[in-house]
Amino acid sequence: MAPAVLLPEDALAIGVDVGGTKAIAGLVDESGAVLATARRDTPGRTTEASVVEDVIVDAVTEIRGYADTHYAGQELVGVGLGAAGFVSADRSTVVFAPHLAWRDEPIRDRLADRLGLPVVLDNDANAAAWAELRFGAGQGEPRLLLVTLGTGIGGALVLDGRVERGRWGMAGEFGHMQVVPDGERCECGNRGCWEQYSSGRAMQREAREMLAQDSPYAAGLAAYCGNDPDRVEGHHVTQAARAGDVAALEMIGDVGRWLGLGLANLAAALDPGRIVVGGGVSEAGDLLLEPAREMFGRRLTGRGHRPLAPILAAQLGPAAGMIGAADLVRAAHGQTGGAHDDLTRGQG
Amino acid sequence: MAPAVLLPEDALAIGVDVGGTKAIAGLVDESGAVLATARRDTPGRTTEASVVEDVIVDAVTEIRGYADTHYAGQELVGVGLGAAGFVSADRSTVVFAPHLAWRDEPIRDRLADRLGLPVVLDNDANAAAWAELRFGAGQGEPRLLLVTLGTGIGGALVLDGRVERGRWGMAGEFGHMQVVPDGERCECGNRGCWEQYSSGRAMQREAREMLAQDSPYAAGLAAYCGNDPDRVEGHHVTQAARAGDVAALEMIGDVGRWLGLGLANLAAALDPGRIVVGGGVSEAGDLLLEPAREMFGRRLTGRGHRPLAPILAAQLGPAAGMIGAADLVRAAHGQTGGAHDDLTRGQG
Repeated sequence: MAPAVLLPEDALAIGVDVGGTKAIAGLVDESGAVLATARRDTPGRTTEASVVEDVIVDAVTEIRGYADTHYAGQELVGVGLGAAGFVSADRSTVVFAPHLAWRDEPIRDRLADRLGLPVVLDNDANAAAWAELRFGAGQGEPRLLLVTLGTGIGGALVLDGRVERGRWGMAGEFGHMQVVPDGERCECGNRGCWEQYSSGRAMQREAREMLAQDSPYAAGLAAYCGNDPDRVEGHHVTQAARAGDVAALEMIGDVGRWLGLGLANLAAALDPGRIVVGGGVSEAGDLLLEPAREMFGRRLTGRGHRPLAPILAAQLGPAAGMIGAADLVRAAHGQTGGAHDDLTRGQG
Repeated sequence: MAPAVLLPEDALAIGVDVGGTKAIAGLVDESGAVLATARRDTPGRTTEASVVEDVIVDAVTEIRGYADTHYAGQELVGVGLGAAGFVSADRSTVVFAPHLAWRDEPIRDRLADRLGLPVVLDNDANAAAWAELRFGAGQGEPRLLLVTLGTGIGGALVLDGRVERGRWGMAGEFGHMQVVPDGERCECGNRGCWEQYSSGRAMQREAREMLAQDSPYAAGLAAYCGNDPDRVEGHHVTQAARAGDVAALEMIGDVGRWLGLGLANLAAALDPGRIVVGGGVSEAGDLLLEPAREMFGRRLTGRGHRPLAPILAAQLGPAAGMIGAADLVRAAHGQTGGAHDDLTRGQG
């Protein structure tokens, strides 16, 4: 694409979203617009940790080259890294990344040394929440709850316009709140976690079970995955539901109702002013969110004596983590026009 | 008792804890010490709201008289009111008090007018959390979760050394997070709320059912309530457990395990640095807290890759709400030696 036209004083930042299968680096301007991206596959958790670092450096270097060519006069503030894993409270280290080999990996300083640029590290859901707060569905609401429904549930909490990271940087693991005693086994080691009932995995499990029973009710759904229960995924359910398939609509409705119930639990504890739902499953839109809103309104304690926080779809899509990571490095350097996120807030 | 000796510059404050059955006003010094108290019964929710106000004014007037007599030279900063109910985000109004007639009651300004003193209003659990943070088991930990186990569960969240009240002042209703689908009916109108499984009411229900079955296993417990299932209360279970009764120990253990489970849910979301457990049920001490710690350590997601927040007993007992309310009016006037709680933080 043709490079965007920027003002001379506009500063750029690079955001990197690194997950279990891919890393995406993007050049992001002060309005949150993405000017260029570079994508690399990431190795799984059996490959040594330094390979992930090499992949990130490679993607960032490509983006830097693009910036040097097309935006030679603009300042490059630094690199923000949003990682799928637990990040230490001082945000120097990925403590544990379930889908990568990183264990107590001091990635922030390593990358800063290799790149010669300031690097800010955060959890990917925190980065996405920051992006929605600054440029998306969270704008103007400093008490914001973000929930991302993908394979599982991620999340983050914004209070007073800042991401609340917790005492050890591990806040926001909403998906692992238990909602069913002795319920479905979760990969975290527990049973009955919320994400077992409200996620892409939940839709996949339900669809697979129905297909495995060879139910005529699942005939419409079966067409989306070649009639093979082992091949069905959450997005097939979304596609079938959009085409009006009744069984698929029920499955998404169930996931939405569990979403609303879990959000009511969180709202009882936290009383957020707005709730933003992102992640791949949220692409089902109101097929998911209407049942969620209905259940939220039926289950929030004190209903009738309090306002109901609006439940909105996220606006930035899969790029949210990258955009937010880029903006976090800007925020750390006080270049976000008022918004400010204090890197020293945690107490690791 | 003989009046305490204060320095000339020590300022005093009056705290009032107002609940469904009683209001207690206390004269509190800067160290959180209670110098005098006055107790009054409160009318139930069928009596008109102004009667509650009269009761509070009466108790405060008694305490003020005591202060005038015994501490004539000391400044009286104002009155802090901790109320059992939803308080608006601007902390002017009790929106809804389940056990009182207050509905959208602008009690802060009414009391200030009648008393001619600054008045600060807060939820009683918030006031208790503030007291434990300043003078009790929460000292030194700015990310604190307080849970009070009485008839139900109350709670409050302290972040960065301030009580987090939520967008509409309604944060901290931890007891109404659903932990059992289609579980026990709760007075909030829902089913399966956490407080139905971890509270004095839960112990009472279990004890009553066991006694109603005339189980020989309940013989020890029966002695504490005159063999009458209808008379058994939670504190009978605590007494029997302390005397070594096995059935009562099991019941407290069950409540403790549900406590630990719910705390693991909250810690997954919020990652607090310390958890303080208060309320009448917490008088069972480690009979309650050890099973809670064990379950917390088994259920907290990410265990093995994160520290476990310590779970401690509250230190200030039933006076916490009163002490905290008194200190909140001091904090609002910047007289807490560094601690500061910004009254304008909410956005009602």
